[in-house]
Amino acid sequence: MILKDKIRQAADILKEKKIDLWLTFVRESEVCGDPVLDLILGTSCTWQSAFMITASGRTIALVGSLDKANIESTGLYEEAAGYVAGIRDPLVEHLSALNPGKIAINYSESDTMADGLTHGMYLTLRSILEDTPFAERLVSSEKVIAALRGRKTPSEQASIQEAIAETEKIFDRVTGHLRPGLTEREVAAFMQDRVAEAGLKPAWDAAMCPAVFTGPESAGAHAGPTDRPMERGHLMNIDFGVRKGGYCSDLQRTWYFLKEGERQAPDIVLKAFHAVRDGIRLAAEAIRPGIEGYKIDAVARNHITGRGFEEYPHALGHQIGRMAHDGAGLLCPEWERYGTLPYEKIEAGQCYTLEPRVILDDYGVATLEEIIVVTEAGCRFLSTPQEEIYYIK
Amino acid sequence: MILKDKIRQAADILKEKKIDLWLTFVRESEVCGDPVLDLILGTSCTWQSAFMITASGRTIALVGSLDKANIESTGLYEEAAGYVAGIRDPLVEHLSALNPGKIAINYSESDTMADGLTHGMYLTLRSILEDTPFAERLVSSEKVIAALRGRKTPSEQASIQEAIAETEKIFDRVTGHLRPGLTEREVAAFMQDRVAEAGLKPAWDAAMCPAVFTGPESAGAHAGPTDRPMERGHLMNIDFGVRKGGYCSDLQRTWYFLKEGERQAPDIVLKAFHAVRDGIRLAAEAIRPGIEGYKIDAVARNHITGRGFEEYPHALGHQIGRMAHDGAGLLCPEWERYGTLPYEKIEAGQCYTLEPRVILDDYGVATLEEIIVVTEAGCRFLSTPQEEIYYIK
Repeated sequence: MILKDKIRQAADILKEKKIDLWLTFVRESEVCGDPVLDLILGTSCTWQSAFMITASGRTIALVGSLDKANIESTGLYEEAAGYVAGIRDPLVEHLSALNPGKIAINYSESDTMADGLTHGMYLTLRSILEDTPFAERLVSSEKVIAALRGRKTPSEQASIQEAIAETEKIFDRVTGHLRPGLTEREVAAFMQDRVAEAGLKPAWDAAMCPAVFTGPESAGAHAGPTDRPMERGHLMNIDFGVRKGGYCSDLQRTWYFLKEGERQAPDIVLKAFHAVRDGIRLAAEAIRPGIEGYKIDAVARNHITGRGFEEYPHALGHQIGRMAHDGAGLLCPEWERYGTLPYEKIEAGQCYTLEPRVILDDYGVATLEEIIVVTEAGCRFLSTPQEEIYYIK
Repeated sequence: MILKDKIRQAADILKEKKIDLWLTFVRESEVCGDPVLDLILGTSCTWQSAFMITASGRTIALVGSLDKANIESTGLYEEAAGYVAGIRDPLVEHLSALNPGKIAINYSESDTMADGLTHGMYLTLRSILEDTPFAERLVSSEKVIAALRGRKTPSEQASIQEAIAETEKIFDRVTGHLRPGLTEREVAAFMQDRVAEAGLKPAWDAAMCPAVFTGPESAGAHAGPTDRPMERGHLMNIDFGVRKGGYCSDLQRTWYFLKEGERQAPDIVLKAFHAVRDGIRLAAEAIRPGIEGYKIDAVARNHITGRGFEEYPHALGHQIGRMAHDGAGLLCPEWERYGTLPYEKIEAGQCYTLEPRVILDDYGVATLEEIIVVTEAGCRFLSTPQEEIYYIK
């Protein structure tokens, strides 16, 4: 159902972007899968395959003959053609019949989610089109894919919200379970058991989902949990998400382990946490369709540096959907590694994380990650924001 | 342990192929992962990353700063460097220090497993190297990856054999469970329960693993099981594999449902099954290092057409390893869709499936899939070949 909606949406986007044909060219998709297949196919293919969607809404799948039955069973392509010896001739025939002026293919320097065409397959496509007028009509599909992935339909938004609700339930269980002496690895195992118990999957590589960081000089992000124990007087934070019904959550929460006699965290810790929390609030207030992502990143970044803390070494937020990192427009600074992504305009229906951080040399990391959906007027939180540090006695 | 061995093996292969540096350039590897990371990293990375192995055995990982701890924890790269703003400058610095004459990167028109570099990442790399002498030193790593994936170490061979043993156990359970009237879907569900029970994973997309085909005009291959019931007088075949310890099996077996009063399958069915079985035997007898794959395919293909049956519409066999379809040299006919793969020379240590088929209009498909490992002298079966049709009364 969602996939049918997305394919219909794709045709509208092609019209808007003045692209006549969108050609997804792929093989052995379980190994070198184009991530866009999640949105327009929902299964895998083995041999060189061409999935074609036109601005007028025509849908054609040209696949190896042994893949044909499986592709037909999706019910997504009105025409499914199978070939035996090679895709060259039937592909050129289909293109000649459609005669598209602009053909979008899936490569992008900036956006991983729109970069599913491998270089080898690109060379093959160039060679197939060599003596045709179509070779010169190829353009990048990055704007099409960014719009298609980004503009979540109401059912997609509902799916993300369900994944978030499951995640928040597990965070609540963790708070009840924490005590000094537990190791990062033990906390991660407890959470993974809850994920399995609920019949869910981790939103990313299970070895780092959850990622659990305790105390000063922890690994920082994108690392697995260690045998380091939780200690009184330290911050602990968890980066965690689940996948439910094909859609992901991705949230971060922060805890503080009170020392004997302490009733709250030290002032500097509170100040850091509040800088993160308020950075998120201010960014959420500023966000609306039409603004470039880097301007929203700057709202949170400037708030945090204005409070006297160092800036966070990453983006304020990424889009979330079928993947935890769902690609396209980021809320990020104008750094080389982000390419053109800082300049993408925010659109209604996009779902973003907001995740600034402050690193405190003596305590650990104060961080939060919330999720919002962009509306016509601004945005709406899909997660229930953490307002104060969670304390463990 | 296996990964350390493979990285050491990679350096030897680079020397043999006269490549100075092998550069795996990748980002967001969980989404658009280069399949070679399974052999040289074993985890994922988020930002643009360069994994460098030299012919002299040096190993350098250049990754986003937040990925560094995770990459270091693999213990596979003697040097792990993290960057914050962008990979451009540090990558050029590393290349300048190494000054390699030939740099292999992961693209290939023929071999999916060596085609992990996306076209967008290729363009980025070209742009990074634009004003350096290295831009003109880029070559395809396809020969390196084919050798590295193909030449299985003894521990890799043992892992494949374990996956095969599990698969054969489940096939035995199926034979005891089959009766006319069961549907393809019910048989598949029974097998999937056995896979879960044994703590294993399917070797490919669970929706088609096992693939179960009963009777005439079944979908053929690469399709999921249907609600079609098994009937007396029909053939039934199953294509199935499991993943254990990171390595796969992939086997096919054939059953015949005896009619009332029948003591064996009709002559034409026996003749077809024996043509398949003997095609495999003859191909296994012919295989040895140094022969091109298409010559082995021809042995089985000619035997089957010589027995009066139509040729099978696919390759005789593919390599198997971390993936069920492990890429590189195939035992396949000289068809366009196989590119240069038919001409790759067979090497010792490679593991191949042998899987011809005969389609019988009135009965279904007679097929087998066995697995062999190539030795210096010839080959050895890793599976226990099915010698006769399994009968269901």
